Amino acid sequence: MHTVVQSSERAASEGRRRAARVAVAGATGYTGQELLRLLSRHSGVTIAAAMSSGAQPGSSAAPRRLPALAHIFSGTITPLDRDALARDTDLVFLALPDKAAAELAPALIEAGVRVIDLSGAFRLRDGAMRARWYPETHELPEGLAYGLTELERPAVAAARLVANPGCYPTATLLPLSPLVASGLLAPDTDIVVDAKSGVSGAGKVPSERTHFSEVHGSVSAYGVFGHRHGAEIEQGVGRAVNFVPHLMPLDRGILSTIYLRLAPGTTEDTLASVYEQSYGGQPFVRLTSSALPEIKHVAHTNFCDIGWRVDASGRAVVVSVIDNLLKGASGQAVQNMNVMLGLDQATGLL
Amino acid sequence: MHTVVQSSERAASEGRRRAARVAVAGATGYTGQELLRLLSRHSGVTIAAAMSSGAQPGSSAAPRRLPALAHIFSGTITPLDRDALARDTDLVFLALPDKAAAELAPALIEAGVRVIDLSGAFRLRDGAMRARWYPETHELPEGLAYGLTELERPAVAAARLVANPGCYPTATLLPLSPLVASGLLAPDTDIVVDAKSGVSGAGKVPSERTHFSEVHGSVSAYGVFGHRHGAEIEQGVGRAVNFVPHLMPLDRGILSTIYLRLAPGTTEDTLASVYEQSYGGQPFVRLTSSALPEIKHVAHTNFCDIGWRVDASGRAVVVSVIDNLLKGASGQAVQNMNVMLGLDQATGLL
Amino acid sequence: MHTVVQSSERAASEGRRRAARVAVAGATGYTGQELLRLLSRHSGVTIAAAMSSGAQPGSSAAPRRLPALAHIFSGTITPLDRDALARDTDLVFLALPDKAAAELAPALIEAGVRVIDLSGAFRLRDGAMRARWYPETHELPEGLAYGLTELERPAVAAARLVANPGCYPTATLLPLSPLVASGLLAPDTDIVVDAKSGVSGAGKVPSERTHFSEVHGSVSAYGVFGHRHGAEIEQGVGRAVNFVPHLMPLDRGILSTIYLRLAPGTTEDTLASVYEQSYGGQPFVRLTSSALPEIKHVAHTNFCDIGWRVDASGRAVVVSVIDNLLKGASGQAVQNMNVMLGLDQATGLL
Amino acid sequence: MHTVVQSSERAASEGRRRAARVAVAGATGYTGQELLRLLSRHSGVTIAAAMSSGAQPGSSAAPRRLPALAHIFSGTITPLDRDALARDTDLVFLALPDKAAAELAPALIEAGVRVIDLSGAFRLRDGAMRARWYPETHELPEGLAYGLTELERPAVAAARLVANPGCYPTATLLPLSPLVASGLLAPDTDIVVDAKSGVSGAGKVPSERTHFSEVHGSVSAYGVFGHRHGAEIEQGVGRAVNFVPHLMPLDRGILSTIYLRLAPGTTEDTLASVYEQSYGGQPFVRLTSSALPEIKHVAHTNFCDIGWRVDASGRAVVVSVIDNLLKGASGQAVQNMNVMLGLDQATGLL
Repeated sequence: MHTVVQSSERAASEGRRRAARVAVAGATGYTGQELLRLLSRHSGVTIAAAMSSGAQPGSSAAPRRLPALAHIFSGTITPLDRDALARDTDLVFLALPDKAAAELAPALIEAGVRVIDLSGAFRLRDGAMRARWYPETHELPEGLAYGLTELERPAVAAARLVANPGCYPTATLLPLSPLVASGLLAPDTDIVVDAKSGVSGAGKVPSERTHFSEVHGSVSAYGVFGHRHGAEIEQGVGRAVNFVPHLMPLDRGILSTIYLRLAPGTTEDTLASVYEQSYGGQPFVRLTSSALPEIKHVAHTNFCDIGWRVDASGRAVVVSVIDNLLKGASGQAVQNMNVMLGLDQATGLL
Repeated sequence: MHTVVQSSERAASEGRRRAARVAVAGATGYTGQELLRLLSRHSGVTIAAAMSSGAQPGSSAAPRRLPALAHIFSGTITPLDRDALARDTDLVFLALPDKAAAELAPALIEAGVRVIDLSGAFRLRDGAMRARWYPETHELPEGLAYGLTELERPAVAAARLVANPGCYPTATLLPLSPLVASGLLAPDTDIVVDAKSGVSGAGKVPSERTHFSEVHGSVSAYGVFGHRHGAEIEQGVGRAVNFVPHLMPLDRGILSTIYLRLAPGTTEDTLASVYEQSYGGQPFVRLTSSALPEIKHVAHTNFCDIGWRVDASGRAVVVSVIDNLLKGASGQAVQNMNVMLGLDQATGLL
Repeated sequence: MHTVVQSSERAASEGRRRAARVAVAGATGYTGQELLRLLSRHSGVTIAAAMSSGAQPGSSAAPRRLPALAHIFSGTITPLDRDALARDTDLVFLALPDKAAAELAPALIEAGVRVIDLSGAFRLRDGAMRARWYPETHELPEGLAYGLTELERPAVAAARLVANPGCYPTATLLPLSPLVASGLLAPDTDIVVDAKSGVSGAGKVPSERTHFSEVHGSVSAYGVFGHRHGAEIEQGVGRAVNFVPHLMPLDRGILSTIYLRLAPGTTEDTLASVYEQSYGGQPFVRLTSSALPEIKHVAHTNFCDIGWRVDASGRAVVVSVIDNLLKGASGQAVQNMNVMLGLDQATGLL
Repeated sequence: MHTVVQSSERAASEGRRRAARVAVAGATGYTGQELLRLLSRHSGVTIAAAMSSGAQPGSSAAPRRLPALAHIFSGTITPLDRDALARDTDLVFLALPDKAAAELAPALIEAGVRVIDLSGAFRLRDGAMRARWYPETHELPEGLAYGLTELERPAVAAARLVANPGCYPTATLLPLSPLVASGLLAPDTDIVVDAKSGVSGAGKVPSERTHFSEVHGSVSAYGVFGHRHGAEIEQGVGRAVNFVPHLMPLDRGILSTIYLRLAPGTTEDTLASVYEQSYGGQPFVRLTSSALPEIKHVAHTNFCDIGWRVDASGRAVVVSVIDNLLKGASGQAVQNMNVMLGLDQATGLL
């Protein structure tokens, strides 16, 4: 841990000397493209490499493969190259499948490169849980932090490897964790999390589930009692949560509706105080109180909006929204990078 | 009640002699148009009138105002005319605002015309509740039935006035009522109903909430602790329900996700038996067991699909779907008409 | 041809004796499912088989694979079996890839079974064009008709094999053919067809193009100067057409906007006469005159709506809409079947 | 004109001294909100006022009325106040109805405030045309420029009043103007512009046309031979254009498909040269050549992407895309502001 802090301090001080060299491994998926877009206009870093396992030897101009990024990112997409990453970068974003990330991350941090992993490979701390949900992985390295930025800032600042949270856990833990920590929950309450997500969360690989004609005009529940993000949420709050994700006919965004019972006498104002204490001054958490948030307010932003209602009997309904590709993935990853590099956490994100 | 049964029998016997003369009051809204479409191809009735409060004196060809119905319904849309309804029809569908329906229904049944009311005016039995949620109404007439067809068939058959259920209550009570009635719920369980609806449920009058740009790419919760359909659901199951509706970016369909705890030892098979007992042989309830239903399977149909999952600790997640304009409104209204007229309940609906 | 007519008359007379036995080969794709839905409630036929090349030996209950069809089609999905089709059916719908259809159709008509082919294998009459656009096909059998029902009824009635038109050609030729035939076009006019289609026209196999996140919130042109449906349209009108299809973020429906110049003095009324002469009395063509049609008016129906505007200088804009899975595929196929069997062409389609 | 240039130079030199004070009149509509979002993160200006004709006397916190802008714009929304605008600002954006803009603009420029008008009031130069399409307006003031930035930069730089182009004209004139100017069009060619737009272009006021249920799953043509943007396009190219807009089921974006004939021998490469000459080095025009652009590539950006195909007979299909709220309205308005203030035209827009 000692070394890690040093490395963090060194990075931060280097950040003042010169822009950090960052790379994206897995640059052509949805989260990879968002990373390129965000990093291209970020004032504090330079993009040292944009790699894709599917890229041809040699390299190809990014705009040809990623037309949305023309005039934004003018670099090239090169094949995945571990040595080049280890040699030429200060920090690498892994936007890769779980297994590939599990293999690549330890090698990079071994080489002194800091890593932000957007896969699920390092999110679950408990070995048995990890073995259940991410069977192709592996031990956890030292210097690992869970990158829910607002709640883990010091750990992220010092980390060699950040496990960037899942989209559903981000949307759920930001509103839920302060409540659980506050001790305001009724002792025997169930916690139900009914989450609604857009399709981009399923990634770019075509499947029947992501076929337009299967999603348009429809809504469906999936993963009942068996979604890996449920395990990540339960890890975050340290208790059982009944988490059910639903697929919605939209591209970007998650709305998480949380149902629970509070201790007698708890009011909407009580919750306002709890949230204000947790998130007052945080640039990316917006508290909307009893005016419940909607996905359109946060789409294409790094915000998480949180609203809540409490009735006289202590039943609470908490609603939160994020853009799953930004605060739920690439935006929060850049936010974590800012923290790791000692920059203002909002740099390049507003 | 005696008279009512006679009237019902007379109607049924007349139904064998000649096609019943039916009318739609409020023919140009979304539910009114669906009624015209269904009734036009119904083999057992003739459309005696299609009225709209906004129609010009004289009458106008329906296809000009309702281009989707050209070559389907070739009649005219005439101004609302209580006397004509009382004089020339056997049964009237009211697809009107609550207040208009509350005024018109008693006059019609007084005149011996049977009524199926698609508004909310007569859904709540308790006077205080009705005064809270439908303040511009009114006493309940005799011969009233609640038209959740599968669970109320005998009452519907005999009724002079059928209160057609709300869309959310239909989607929720069909899966929930048999469970509550079975006695399988854990005694102290909360019941959470997280419902997701398309926009057509909000009706045809333009508003900020129904503006395409406000709904597309978004999801929002509304009516927390204060939606009239919550009261209707609680009436149906006789206990508290935490009902939260959500607006989805699609046109037609409701998916209702129900969370509750079951008595120890209850399994998915137990629920299968309960549902089979309630709905086996019913043409419009389809039990999908652990394969959860999706809105696209029921859009543009009168089906209600119900699926369920139970875990080892007794937590249950029940998912149901309907088309809000059909099983949640006009389809169920025609199903009720079939029952009232002594026809096969599926006539004109498959 | 003589034999064909006899066979047609025999079929028609048999149709009066008993319901024709029909089969769907390729029952699990989008058009196959629509066929099963339509045929299940059709009063004049019985479904003798529903086959799929992907079905397991033995057979599986359809509702398990096709949950939308539960309580509608209760049969089984069996593996593709040419002999069974030849032996046990009177008429077969081919909802298969072009190559499979090109192989199967001749064998079936050889065995005396009539065929309606929804693929493109037999649509182009010219051998060179067919070789260009459908290279894996093949000679044309005798007794072939092009199944644009309204314009080819006598040929369809007598046919052994009907090439069911493509969706874009259906949407385009119904409005365009009468104009060309009328001689009202300005001699040197270009014909531009800007067509907009929903995604289901691309079929059920997932691809990047049909990925929800690629289509939602987007519009794109494709196939410029090189779409096989362009060749089919040009065949239909016998002259060059600049046809450009576009992919829209909706599931079902095509809107075709046709731009051309008319001979001096031609008015909207002139066009009304032309269309009335071609389609007056036709159940599935609705003429909307200067009130231009919209996809929502025809979605989930077999209608083709046609509207038109003409300015003082003779420029015309003609707009037509269909549901690509119904009038553009399965609905028109059933309409053709009705004609082949001597039934009212609207049977089972209104 | 002399004065204007002085005023422009003074503004530019002041821009170096201090950030220009800008205001948005009409801050709560869709374009007004986009302006606030863009200006809030713009490094070269300060927002002096955000006004709305519907605002209450006194003022209200913007985030309450515009929750999407919380943590972005923390100012207040105040009632429209002409004197305050004249007194306290250097430049005002008018995002108001045509009539209100026609009245306000002259008063402001009289007071020495520069104006960028997003309404249609000052777009048409010809008095008769203006009287036809914008009857409630009015004379044109001196110092007026048409704000199609890439083609009118010098005029915009010097202008007191910029008429920001319509969304359809922007999407159409950027690809079409260089072709017309190049002299490459076949002499007698028709020009057909088939434009497809999202709903936000219709503004925020709810209507039947913008009702979600009317738009979802549908496509429709409108304004044939009679859309004011057609007049603006014809003014831009100086010849007749057959412009037909279509409404698509998406929120943001326009795709314009342009059909015309080129002089014999013109190829795709010829067009590449023409476009390169017009737009090479322009930050917001991206030339995609034969890979046709799609709306998703430009949504939420200020880009206009242009692609083209030419066949051997000289038929050309040119496709362009923009985000109607950005390059088609607020983005181009800020781009114009940058030019007027002597800033890099991309400031705050990438």
